[in-house]
Amino acid sequence: MGKRVLVVGAVALGSKAACRLKRLEPDAEVLLIDQDEHISYGGCGIPYYVSGDVADASELQSTSFHMLRDERFFKDCKDIDVLTRTRVTAINRKGKTIDIVRQDGSKDSLAYDKLVIGTGSRVRDLAINGQNLKGIFSVGSLRDAIAIKSTIAAGQAGTAVVVGGGFIGLEMAEALADMWGIETTVVEIADQIMPGFVGPEMAHMAQQHMEGQGVSFRLGERVIRFEGEDGTVARVVTDKESLEADLVIIAAGIVPNGELAADAGLEVGWNGGIVVDAHMRTTDPDIYAGGDCVLVANALTGKPGYYPLGSLSNRQGRVIGDNLAGKESVSPPVVGSFVVKLFETCLCGAGLTLKRALEEGFDAVSVRMCQLDRAHFYPTKELMYLELVVDRKTRQILGIQGSGSKGDATVGRINAVAALLPRKPVVEDISNMEFAYSPPFSSAMDIVNALGNVADNLLDGRMHPIGCEEFAEKWEAIQKGDICLIDCRARADAKVYEEKYPAFWKGIPQDELLQRLDELPEGKPLVLICNTGVRSYEAQLNLRAKGHTDNVTVFGGVAMLKHWGMDI
Amino acid sequence: MGKRVLVVGAVALGSKAACRLKRLEPDAEVLLIDQDEHISYGGCGIPYYVSGDVADASELQSTSFHMLRDERFFKDCKDIDVLTRTRVTAINRKGKTIDIVRQDGSKDSLAYDKLVIGTGSRVRDLAINGQNLKGIFSVGSLRDAIAIKSTIAAGQAGTAVVVGGGFIGLEMAEALADMWGIETTVVEIADQIMPGFVGPEMAHMAQQHMEGQGVSFRLGERVIRFEGEDGTVARVVTDKESLEADLVIIAAGIVPNGELAADAGLEVGWNGGIVVDAHMRTTDPDIYAGGDCVLVANALTGKPGYYPLGSLSNRQGRVIGDNLAGKESVSPPVVGSFVVKLFETCLCGAGLTLKRALEEGFDAVSVRMCQLDRAHFYPTKELMYLELVVDRKTRQILGIQGSGSKGDATVGRINAVAALLPRKPVVEDISNMEFAYSPPFSSAMDIVNALGNVADNLLDGRMHPIGCEEFAEKWEAIQKGDICLIDCRARADAKVYEEKYPAFWKGIPQDELLQRLDELPEGKPLVLICNTGVRSYEAQLNLRAKGHTDNVTVFGGVAMLKHWGMDI
Repeated sequence: MGKRVLVVGAVALGSKAACRLKRLEPDAEVLLIDQDEHISYGGCGIPYYVSGDVADASELQSTSFHMLRDERFFKDCKDIDVLTRTRVTAINRKGKTIDIVRQDGSKDSLAYDKLVIGTGSRVRDLAINGQNLKGIFSVGSLRDAIAIKSTIAAGQAGTAVVVGGGFIGLEMAEALADMWGIETTVVEIADQIMPGFVGPEMAHMAQQHMEGQGVSFRLGERVIRFEGEDGTVARVVTDKESLEADLVIIAAGIVPNGELAADAGLEVGWNGGIVVDAHMRTTDPDIYAGGDCVLVANALTGKPGYYPLGSLSNRQGRVIGDNLAGKESVSPPVVGSFVVKLFETCLCGAGLTLKRALEEGFDAVSVRMCQLDRAHFYPTKELMYLELVVDRKTRQILGIQGSGSKGDATVGRINAVAALLPRKPVVEDISNMEFAYSPPFSSAMDIVNALGNVADNLLDGRMHPIGCEEFAEKWEAIQKGDICLIDCRARADAKVYEEKYPAFWKGIPQDELLQRLDELPEGKPLVLICNTGVRSYEAQLNLRAKGHTDNVTVFGGVAMLKHWGMDI
Repeated sequence: MGKRVLVVGAVALGSKAACRLKRLEPDAEVLLIDQDEHISYGGCGIPYYVSGDVADASELQSTSFHMLRDERFFKDCKDIDVLTRTRVTAINRKGKTIDIVRQDGSKDSLAYDKLVIGTGSRVRDLAINGQNLKGIFSVGSLRDAIAIKSTIAAGQAGTAVVVGGGFIGLEMAEALADMWGIETTVVEIADQIMPGFVGPEMAHMAQQHMEGQGVSFRLGERVIRFEGEDGTVARVVTDKESLEADLVIIAAGIVPNGELAADAGLEVGWNGGIVVDAHMRTTDPDIYAGGDCVLVANALTGKPGYYPLGSLSNRQGRVIGDNLAGKESVSPPVVGSFVVKLFETCLCGAGLTLKRALEEGFDAVSVRMCQLDRAHFYPTKELMYLELVVDRKTRQILGIQGSGSKGDATVGRINAVAALLPRKPVVEDISNMEFAYSPPFSSAMDIVNALGNVADNLLDGRMHPIGCEEFAEKWEAIQKGDICLIDCRARADAKVYEEKYPAFWKGIPQDELLQRLDELPEGKPLVLICNTGVRSYEAQLNLRAKGHTDNVTVFGGVAMLKHWGMDI
């Protein structure tokens, strides 16, 4: 018999580590232990099970070839033993044993040569009144998911409140509103959805889109208690109002289950996540850990960060399996790539947001743009929105975020830039990135190249742009005539707006600008606008060449402002 | 007045270089010169104009905001002068002038401070009889495209032959067959379509798909002459047969227009393409060149290669514009990313094919696989097919090719790997690449990660696979019982085949294999198969652990064989 390996936790990380080890070292003796009855399931699929897209919970626990990944599967297909409904209560590192308690209360102690900790995460405890009322759920496990769906399917939910506007909260809001017609409100403590993942402008666009599909939002509100009737939740009380709710989903963050490791004297980090090295080894060389219970290095900051992502767990599991078998393998620092589908659009990104980059001490700035996702002459195409975060001094790319209705096309761009991020690309690398080009798939100058070019123009001081929020702030002054707005589009395009706002919307096509300089008001700042920002930038260059510098262009132009929700 | 810059050729490269220069240096005096009447058009859109997807040729010559990029556009919007219908006949480097001939025959000599050569390419001359007959076209310019479409629209084509199965040939075949219902045959001299771009297996899959849509193929055939009636083409005669044709499209490769440069004593390379440095400077420091008339370094081989791609031309144009303005800028070596839409599927890739890698002296091998393009439990998903070319010794990734019906998803994967290719990634980098994960977009272990894992298993000697072609070669021996075929899928999945082939198709589910070892025939080699190759690999490991080594698994399993066109 080979070495004896115990694996605590049998969802993504643990199962993967165990299977990989057995493939490399068939005579290893491997035991998977989990406190739950469901193991090896795709937790990220829970919103799709709740929505009904996935009909049965067992599909989340099945292989692509429809075998249920239960105890029997692991035994027969993988020669791996499994103990479910069994809690691990302690790790005794000196004696190399763990203490377990089975569901029937019986206790035992099991010896290991190597141990793997994949204890995952749990929903952050809000610690507020009423949180144990019936009808309040978290989305932490398949068991939770089954409970939510049976409540909905029984027709017991007409109104729902989702606490938390991160990606799980938003996916759940879509599931409830879209498939079940439940009146759904998302309450988010930050002043934008997806805080930490995208900037406020892109968050606002996605929020607009979801509102159009019937989801309501309360931003900058803190839930202070839940109120019930007959033991079932009836209202969510925030610091500003009281919201009716038959159903509450708590998706306000998760925390790593690092206690078992910490109690055994293993080092844990700032949020209780287990500290591991590049080999996914804890501070005890015989104990590995990975997945939602560990901290891993961020490729941009070098600091330990928390990335509870199913994809990462799978890859880390394989790395652990390698190392257990003596095939030295490392898990590289991460950039935290993510994507979330929100009705007919998606949000995705990798690396740092502008806010986070500034907090980390970078001299950061971000550029935003929109462009058609394929050749403009191709019959089917959509605008895609991208934001690139760069360091002014070093020109290093720090992060990218995107939004688009063709999700595959948008996330494809993010993944490509994400591939480069750990290698510290600069603006020029983005301008010159190779993208496969054919009119049905992209523009000759891909939107990512164009985004790099915008960053280049900004950093070199040629482009002086404002974003949607700044435009909205200037809107009153524009309407009062204190700031002069110049629409640089062709006459026909500008005409609609000139007729709507005869007092202050002035059209001067970019190709006529240099001949009509005398029409510009003296001493007034200008806002230059066009459809997506290309011509207004050209106009800005034309004006600057003539010495006119008190002007700004609008990132993404009218198209971006409208998509952002500006009522113009 | 600033420096005087002449730009020879005003399609992608020349126009871009000119516009970028003017944005950086508004007082530069720039003159674009082109022999054609159409300038600055998207040549890659020609098949979509021929098909009718793009209604009017002018759309290919317009900006995304519907302005026609003609002489007037360049003058009014960009302050750039344009001479169309004007040929440049010589460059006099000593005197820094060029000789021109206008359409009316008048000649002139123009002085330059800096010169840009963007003379593009032309269709390779087949030099065979009958090639000047009416009804024979190439796809070299917008003028050709307009002629083709007017021929088709006049109803003068019932049968067409496309000479060349590269991407332009295939796009044209789709346009003719799909939108116009023309009986279309592609004649390709190589024994596969898309030679040099994808391997034979993937080429065969795409060919299958196109045949299903009504396009015929003649591979390994050389066109030896065209025969006409009344001056119009009627037949294409190959070295094997004679094909009826009212219309012939010649898409058998293009060559760079490097003669103008060569005649002026500038260095040109193996195919006549102009030699440039990383700054896109020719051997004369006052002369830049780029686009379809130059050779650029391949990032994998380091050797000068020919990459006539519209995307590259645009990016190179911008680099030239930078350098003209004194902003030092380089164009990096290329990996040759490409994508082509073929009805409901696509082919795409980057880097080297296996064949090319072997020719270049790499100790190369390729792995192939198929996997669902999103979570297997998500309701909409499709199989995606990938091939990864790796060097056995260094484990360096040399190339990747892909095919899938969700083109954006497939090309997104290729672009991500392409981003890494110039940085010499190894197998482990692919296994650990970050892909944004959410069930509507990907699997937790993305297909690219899985592809890296397959390569890892192969290079480490754990996996012993065969491809579709090798399976087809063994099929007779399997049917005769000389090779034993074991279907490792669940009983229900294998049953259909066991009933179809009772004599030799034997099902032993992977999870029963170790208990049923006595059912394996002694002394006979085994072929292990399952649906996509996951279980047959597991079975192979199980057998090898028991000392049974005379067995192979099938890349991508039954799914891949069927998609490839194997009639099982």
